[in-house]
Amino acid sequence: MPLSPEQQAEIDTLRATPRPTLRAVAEGMEAHLYRPAPVLDHGFVRVIDYMGDDAAICQAARVSYGRGTKSVSNDAGLIRYLMRHWHSTPFEMCEVKFHVKLPVFVARQWIRHRTANVNEYSARYSILDREFYIPAPDDLAAQSTTNNQGRGDVLEGPEAARVLEMLKSDSTRAYDHYEAMISQDGQQGLARELARMNLPANIYTQWYWKVDLHNLFHFLRLRADAHAQYEIRVYADAICNIVADWVPAAYAAFQDYRMGGATLSATALDCVRRMIRGEAVTQENSGMSRGEWREFEQILRESEA
Amino acid sequence: MPLSPEQQAEIDTLRATPRPTLRAVAEGMEAHLYRPAPVLDHGFVRVIDYMGDDAAICQAARVSYGRGTKSVSNDAGLIRYLMRHWHSTPFEMCEVKFHVKLPVFVARQWIRHRTANVNEYSARYSILDREFYIPAPDDLAAQSTTNNQGRGDVLEGPEAARVLEMLKSDSTRAYDHYEAMISQDGQQGLARELARMNLPANIYTQWYWKVDLHNLFHFLRLRADAHAQYEIRVYADAICNIVADWVPAAYAAFQDYRMGGATLSATALDCVRRMIRGEAVTQENSGMSRGEWREFEQILRESEA
Amino acid sequence: MPLSPEQQAEIDTLRATPRPTLRAVAEGMEAHLYRPAPVLDHGFVRVIDYMGDDAAICQAARVSYGRGTKSVSNDAGLIRYLMRHWHSTPFEMCEVKFHVKLPVFVARQWIRHRTANVNEYSARYSILDREFYIPAPDDLAAQSTTNNQGRGDVLEGPEAARVLEMLKSDSTRAYDHYEAMISQDGQQGLARELARMNLPANIYTQWYWKVDLHNLFHFLRLRADAHAQYEIRVYADAICNIVADWVPAAYAAFQDYRMGGATLSATALDCVRRMIRGEAVTQENSGMSRGEWREFEQILRESEA
Amino acid sequence: MPLSPEQQAEIDTLRATPRPTLRAVAEGMEAHLYRPAPVLDHGFVRVIDYMGDDAAICQAARVSYGRGTKSVSNDAGLIRYLMRHWHSTPFEMCEVKFHVKLPVFVARQWIRHRTANVNEYSARYSILDREFYIPAPDDLAAQSTTNNQGRGDVLEGPEAARVLEMLKSDSTRAYDHYEAMISQDGQQGLARELARMNLPANIYTQWYWKVDLHNLFHFLRLRADAHAQYEIRVYADAICNIVADWVPAAYAAFQDYRMGGATLSATALDCVRRMIRGEAVTQENSGMSRGEWREFEQILRESEA
Repeated sequence: MPLSPEQQAEIDTLRATPRPTLRAVAEGMEAHLYRPAPVLDHGFVRVIDYMGDDAAICQAARVSYGRGTKSVSNDAGLIRYLMRHWHSTPFEMCEVKFHVKLPVFVARQWIRHRTANVNEYSARYSILDREFYIPAPDDLAAQSTTNNQGRGDVLEGPEAARVLEMLKSDSTRAYDHYEAMISQDGQQGLARELARMNLPANIYTQWYWKVDLHNLFHFLRLRADAHAQYEIRVYADAICNIVADWVPAAYAAFQDYRMGGATLSATALDCVRRMIRGEAVTQENSGMSRGEWREFEQILRESEA
Repeated sequence: MPLSPEQQAEIDTLRATPRPTLRAVAEGMEAHLYRPAPVLDHGFVRVIDYMGDDAAICQAARVSYGRGTKSVSNDAGLIRYLMRHWHSTPFEMCEVKFHVKLPVFVARQWIRHRTANVNEYSARYSILDREFYIPAPDDLAAQSTTNNQGRGDVLEGPEAARVLEMLKSDSTRAYDHYEAMISQDGQQGLARELARMNLPANIYTQWYWKVDLHNLFHFLRLRADAHAQYEIRVYADAICNIVADWVPAAYAAFQDYRMGGATLSATALDCVRRMIRGEAVTQENSGMSRGEWREFEQILRESEA
Repeated sequence: MPLSPEQQAEIDTLRATPRPTLRAVAEGMEAHLYRPAPVLDHGFVRVIDYMGDDAAICQAARVSYGRGTKSVSNDAGLIRYLMRHWHSTPFEMCEVKFHVKLPVFVARQWIRHRTANVNEYSARYSILDREFYIPAPDDLAAQSTTNNQGRGDVLEGPEAARVLEMLKSDSTRAYDHYEAMISQDGQQGLARELARMNLPANIYTQWYWKVDLHNLFHFLRLRADAHAQYEIRVYADAICNIVADWVPAAYAAFQDYRMGGATLSATALDCVRRMIRGEAVTQENSGMSRGEWREFEQILRESEA
Repeated sequence: MPLSPEQQAEIDTLRATPRPTLRAVAEGMEAHLYRPAPVLDHGFVRVIDYMGDDAAICQAARVSYGRGTKSVSNDAGLIRYLMRHWHSTPFEMCEVKFHVKLPVFVARQWIRHRTANVNEYSARYSILDREFYIPAPDDLAAQSTTNNQGRGDVLEGPEAARVLEMLKSDSTRAYDHYEAMISQDGQQGLARELARMNLPANIYTQWYWKVDLHNLFHFLRLRADAHAQYEIRVYADAICNIVADWVPAAYAAFQDYRMGGATLSATALDCVRRMIRGEAVTQENSGMSRGEWREFEQILRESEA
């Protein structure tokens, strides 16, 4: 994620000039502002702006005239209560704006989360940079043999080399042709809005993405999950690090109730009750399908981690 | 809108302690923060927090690394262009949070604007205050004789007095009974979630309301409009005053293109072209219905104001 | 819920004339169409239109050219998988439109669910009917002594009588004055948009409400829950009955995974694992607060119901 | 857009079996159901389901018990009134579901319209087909010399040939390599979720897209507009043809007020008034920028078309 000297200078300028405000300030977030956290080979996530903090969640929940804070521990308890009971509106009272650089195929997954505001770099208007995601050797995985929608072992030896060679050479050729098509040197030059269609899905794009904390948590629950594709999960992980510094109490509640928690069906709860009573419950007498039972065992096993 | 001394003290505390931030700061908005702008007899609007400024709109439109500002006049031109061409996403990059105190019947209209975040004071959990909207004599209007959905002349003499007397005495009685029902003095006390149903729609409630600038403009276009009910229009007007100080360039563009502008149908545009060519266009040869023609004439007449 | 003969005739007309369609048809839903299911003393829920069925959920999940159904059991398995893994978009592919008559204070809770389309009867434009919700004696509950936001025992004897008398007489007086204010008999007549503010929150309103199945399930999970206020829960229950006939497989999955299921925190899951291993876990060594532990015990106890 | 015999057979099956329903039926839409309208070289739009018709818009606006229709002309008048006054909620009471096959770069523009439901074919789970958009010679346009975001003249002679050759050969090579990478013939086979990143943006994808009529009109206003990129405009045009048969009155109002209409700023309205009074208004004395004046002249000129 090499920033150009001009880009770095712009960031330095922004960080050099604190100004007084009467708004809620989250110290942990001020330290992150504008600084890119590198993700994948050329991507990043950086915070551009934020609104609110842990106290703002409580203030809205109490519809109070002042900060609404009684004490830090009191606030943390209220936040846990709100999270546990799915009271989502107070979390919507915090907002954050990111600048993200990411491969197009990651952007296509990301954009499915609709309750957010987005401004993407326009390839109709501007020329895209020559930057492509090429996986590190350890991230070059084979198709999973058990999960149609996942990946399995790391590719080995010559196969890995062949794949990397194809990805690199196709990216290079596609971009060379993109440049050749839009060039106005001795020819008319194809419209940018058409030429871009030759570019593969591992090219990087960038956008401003603004979202409230409730919807961000929803995004993180799905995308920081072990079943998410690795290439979007690393973005979610980078955002988790930032959110932990922004709203520590809300993030801790999110970790406990959402990321580390699990939703059990009525059937699964019934099995849990039988197991606590000492009954030997197996898939056969559980009332669950094989797939469901496997997931249920997984949940019960995770303690040993 | 009498704040209690405790409430005023909370506001004073918040305004007394500026803190440094690296975020975009809008000086015009800092002056408004936390201070209630009075609306109607007991209501108010006050800004609790904001994100972004005019430059942030341009920064997002350009997906830039720094502030994105080339010059103030350049930014204003870009903002006008974005507004004119309905490019709404850059305006969504600014966000504002209000604390509003308002009569329930106004709240019921307001909440129809769905793309916003709301935390309302809970009458299941808490006891409502004894505060009711009683219109000023000049705002006590008769049903319009031409518009089923509007109001006409101001009520006169004894009729106005009778109406005020009914509104006041019914509010008082309803609240007395509300208190009597929830009282636990010598009786069990009715559940608050039930007792509240006795309260009329002119009682005041309050909420935190958070919205992005694009959706706020949409709200203001409909609710600061001459056809909006007076009691919500005064809230929209109070918000307009605040927004004008927050994002002056965006607000000026909004005034020119939305509030002061008009959408003409294909039929109306055709009439305009004929009129510019000197043709005498009347309702009969306009292709418009009578109601539509009346509205069209109104648009053309407004210049003389 | 007395329909007028005219209203009943309109409904009979609509049900008398089946027409051929090539769309997906849900027999269970056709039986409900237009017929009001009574709720509370004057309210109802009735289905006006619907789109899709269980097979449509699978068809969208598979992005298939035809109905997408392999077999009914295969479809039910896919639907359970989608529900278990929070794949919400296929459920959004079904849509339903209700006509609901409900007290205003219920409408105010309901409308907080923003991802839906609403057209409410306009009290600016029209005159409201003289219909108020007066609780049945068994539903007249005292404030809960343990839950600020709930109700406890049923009110007894003279207190109940006093409350009913207040609710009835205040409703009657408020409506008498509403009529007196808008009357144009010998006076100008107050604007309807103003006069309505005298009416209490137990007056009935009505609206058309249209929502997709995913968001409807979210509404039902919160509002058919034991912690929801009784007066909205009965509407949610009436809708549950309808949905069960519309999309039986999706509704069964919803019952198992959402209504009958529970989300356990990481802390709670850890306790479950310890209990299964035979350890004696108490609130003190659980890592949970007292409130949280009470809720956890409740979840484990429910099996005995 | 060659459907396979299996796909055609599935569509024929669906069209062969009308079933009785009590819901609103739009004859014009029944004729379209399931049949693909071809768009571009391999794409299509086809209606999968719909809810409501012109009368349903009026029924919701009136919150009525029956169909709400007084007469067809009365309904058309009400619909025009609702459209003119931006009463959007009654239009939200109609819903439509499309199955669309479209190039990825078109899908990326389309998805920015967030108020809709989408299920896209999953390239993590499934293997994409070898189908790419290659523009017809007449659609191979040069970059506009006046508009950074548009296209100008058609490319000529050898340049056009070179561009087509690059697009075709790069698509072919990218897909060959995609197949080679995922192949499990003598190798592990790269995960599908990774291999897809080699595919260019002109590959076709498909999705189910469901939207209400109000938001569909918003989409059509922006995407059937002359400034939209040609490759998405042809999809919008195909949808316009369908909507015209579904809700003829609403579509006619949309054409008059939105597609054929224009929004004039306060400044522009003032110019119109001066021009009608016979004044010679030029850019210099108009108060508009050059770009704005050019667009204003364009609006006034369009009559001559």
